[in-house]
Amino acid sequence: MSAVHHIAFLKFKPGTPEVKAAEIISELGRLPRLIGGIRDFSIGANNSPQGLNQGYTHAFTMIFESAAARDAYLVHPAHLAFERLALPHVAAVAVVDYSPE
Amino acid sequence: MSAVHHIAFLKFKPGTPEVKAAEIISELGRLPRLIGGIRDFSIGANNSPQGLNQGYTHAFTMIFESAAARDAYLVHPAHLAFERLALPHVAAVAVVDYSPE
Repeated sequence: MSAVHHIAFLKFKPGTPEVKAAEIISELGRLPRLIGGIRDFSIGANNSPQGLNQGYTHAFTMIFESAAARDAYLVHPAHLAFERLALPHVAAVAVVDYSPE
Repeated sequence: MSAVHHIAFLKFKPGTPEVKAAEIISELGRLPRLIGGIRDFSIGANNSPQGLNQGYTHAFTMIFESAAARDAYLVHPAHLAFERLALPHVAAVAVVDYSPE
């Protein structure tokens, strides 16, 4: 089984209260304890000096033990509940998954 | 010192020969052996079923031991040489760096 790196770049809507953004980040961080097959999770605010962030202000990485674990995560009730919490406050998102070559 | 995750989403220009894309990926993979302070490197082609990749076809992650190591990488001659090789074939790029919260 090949690991899958699941990476999202996010931009919160203008006016999203800081406490709401913090709640969203915190709830996302709980998912690896609720859903199996996630080896690693990290998230943070953009600090690149390159100016190539295309408006995205945050990124997170989840490393799944397999594509099957990633697929199960996407439809897991805890993930769907997270999406219902987060998406109303997200202005833009880009997601790329890859299995390291 | 806080680690920095340096993540890029890439889209090659239409018509980029496969052998050229492979060369670019291979040369990027050499940088951690030429430039200090890179703890981990991985790259791959998008395999997300979510359809949120916004046109990006590849992603890579470099984990630097510190923001200073990331800053030194950005201006390192080996990185600049890589940019001269790659950028003519890159249609779009988004870069977000973060120190895990």
